Amino acid sequence: MKKRVYMDYSATAPMREKVLEEMMDFMKTEYGNPSSLHSFGRESKNAVDTARDRIAKTLNAKSREIYFTGGGSESDNWAIKGYAFANRNKGNHIITTKIEHHAVLYAVEYLEKEHGFTATYLDVDEDGLIDLEELKNAITDETILITVMFANNEIGTIQPIKEIGAIARERKVAFHTDGVQIYGNGKVDVEELNIDMLSLSAHKIHGPKGIGALYIRPGIRLHNLIHGGAQERKKRAGTENVPGIVGFGKAAELAHENLEERIQEKTRLRDKLIDGILETIPHTLLNGHRTKRLPNNTNISFRYIEGESLLLSLDMVGIAASSGSACTSGSLDPSHVLLSLGLTHEVAHGSLRLTIGVYNTEEEVDYVLEQLPPIVERLRQMSPLYEEIQGGNQ
Amino acid sequence: MKKRVYMDYSATAPMREKVLEEMMDFMKTEYGNPSSLHSFGRESKNAVDTARDRIAKTLNAKSREIYFTGGGSESDNWAIKGYAFANRNKGNHIITTKIEHHAVLYAVEYLEKEHGFTATYLDVDEDGLIDLEELKNAITDETILITVMFANNEIGTIQPIKEIGAIARERKVAFHTDGVQIYGNGKVDVEELNIDMLSLSAHKIHGPKGIGALYIRPGIRLHNLIHGGAQERKKRAGTENVPGIVGFGKAAELAHENLEERIQEKTRLRDKLIDGILETIPHTLLNGHRTKRLPNNTNISFRYIEGESLLLSLDMVGIAASSGSACTSGSLDPSHVLLSLGLTHEVAHGSLRLTIGVYNTEEEVDYVLEQLPPIVERLRQMSPLYEEIQGGNQ
Repeated sequence: MKKRVYMDYSATAPMREKVLEEMMDFMKTEYGNPSSLHSFGRESKNAVDTARDRIAKTLNAKSREIYFTGGGSESDNWAIKGYAFANRNKGNHIITTKIEHHAVLYAVEYLEKEHGFTATYLDVDEDGLIDLEELKNAITDETILITVMFANNEIGTIQPIKEIGAIARERKVAFHTDGVQIYGNGKVDVEELNIDMLSLSAHKIHGPKGIGALYIRPGIRLHNLIHGGAQERKKRAGTENVPGIVGFGKAAELAHENLEERIQEKTRLRDKLIDGILETIPHTLLNGHRTKRLPNNTNISFRYIEGESLLLSLDMVGIAASSGSACTSGSLDPSHVLLSLGLTHEVAHGSLRLTIGVYNTEEEVDYVLEQLPPIVERLRQMSPLYEEIQGGNQ
Repeated sequence: MKKRVYMDYSATAPMREKVLEEMMDFMKTEYGNPSSLHSFGRESKNAVDTARDRIAKTLNAKSREIYFTGGGSESDNWAIKGYAFANRNKGNHIITTKIEHHAVLYAVEYLEKEHGFTATYLDVDEDGLIDLEELKNAITDETILITVMFANNEIGTIQPIKEIGAIARERKVAFHTDGVQIYGNGKVDVEELNIDMLSLSAHKIHGPKGIGALYIRPGIRLHNLIHGGAQERKKRAGTENVPGIVGFGKAAELAHENLEERIQEKTRLRDKLIDGILETIPHTLLNGHRTKRLPNNTNISFRYIEGESLLLSLDMVGIAASSGSACTSGSLDPSHVLLSLGLTHEVAHGSLRLTIGVYNTEEEVDYVLEQLPPIVERLRQMSPLYEEIQGGNQ
């Protein structure tokens, strides 16, 4: 059988066996609608409550502060649009960054373009970090919401969330953060960090696809994104995705057993990858901060080649990776995140993201480090730009 | 083992074995993100395409007209809010009915209350049917959207969708219909019926929970409800729920094999239930139209008793049913649908919905017909109102 090495965990992660196991009952025999007043319904309702408890516990939150959604993108859209629409009497200004996930960026742009809001998009430095002074200066009397992602999905940079939370609190502005990538890769304490709203996704932490959550601090008022039935304390309508919720709860629990050890192990493999690539392959550049970084993220630009060709060549030898975010891979534009770091279009196009997960082994990291250099060299030999450079070196 | 008879198929339906079987691969080994440019991603992408084809085929639609969502409620919200926001330059008036599912009703009310739209809520007659003349008269120069459900989730009444579609077409108003209950219970041809947008849900047709779809006719312009990644042709962001989509596709295919025969069989069992109850139990009343009705819906008011007590007593003998819609069962208000038929609060409160599915047997119908009369009699004996009536009869 052909070797398959999956290093695209930030795009999606395989479900853990125990997650699927817990879901199976609710896909087979316990199929009731949690809103129904009979035994089928009660079993489902209890299962949803258990999952909510499990997730709340990992965040130092209360169960009733967790609302299930259809995924991280829905959570982001709900938090941003829901808060903006419900608080427009207080002001119409939103602060975000230039490197947000598109679910945040396009939600904010939509409010600007179609609903009379204004927005500030904070710059980031070459490591992808925002400037806290710039954030403070951007806050006006009209500012109602700050939305800054916890950790970037492409370059892995982790923002100073606690400081942002403190600034938001002091200036009485609500603070939302997209926690999809940090969850399961770092500690998230909504109290300690002053987070008012937090978006989560199950499938990034080895849970099922199609399920996410939004943490909402009590007192934060949102319009519903999905109106209808009385589910989720009347805040998010639609029959609960019981198997998905059950799987999410289990995945959250499992991800937080030995979290610290896992982070250390991922960091070790990540560093081996980063150092291995930077040391063996010339004309390479690490994107994102070297240490304020997701423990599983490696993002490197390879000059003189196209990320897409690199991906396809890696796929030929069984290595699954990503260039930029999977969500934009359908597009020919270079990543907005990489451009925000100051990279040229050409360099941004030649970037590769390897994101590791609990199932990756040291042997797999070695396999990547062995396969990558000859592939890069072969692709560079075909590049006219590289030829020039090589010619110049002779 | 205790007997369990599930007759709450309109709340949710158990997954069919073949549906779960097809989903399993995508929950175990083929877990890639369809947007990823590697073999894991391609497998997932192909599976999503197949599911889209299967659903399109059942509707006489094209694959590219089907957009996956997180469920029927999201589809309703997207169709209504998305269309209203994108077409407010043409007008601000929406027409709907008083008996819509809350996902439609509350979405329209939200647009009225918060976004400057106006709405007409059409009355229904005692069978739950709208009046086509009233619909025509409600259309003004400001009307942009008509949203009338195909079949009612509580009382089963089927609206004259083809005629509504024709009126909408003639008056150049968009026509959305919530098809969640009719799908799998009747033929739906978007061309023949002039439907511009159609909401669907998977778990009502023995597919998984947490997945739905919106059919959108080409040329119909909507704002996104969920902005972000380029999924669903840039119309609905978020990593695709691949197992859910695969299961939905399979369930749609299965539901449309021998659709006619199944409808006939369900109708036969339904009629046996309706006639059996009305003939054996006094002071009962069928809600909804006798023949323009979902083949699986029985909704009956039992005077002098509370629906909730009836449900709990039925649950004690293993029968799972519903009073009103499951989505509002958390509430003490009587069903808005039953009140719209002209029922008093008291009679509306005493209603029971039995919705059958492919797994129900004649024996189960007989069991319900055997259990129900003594339960109703016992509950009535405890009712002060019933005592008065009985006293009067002596």
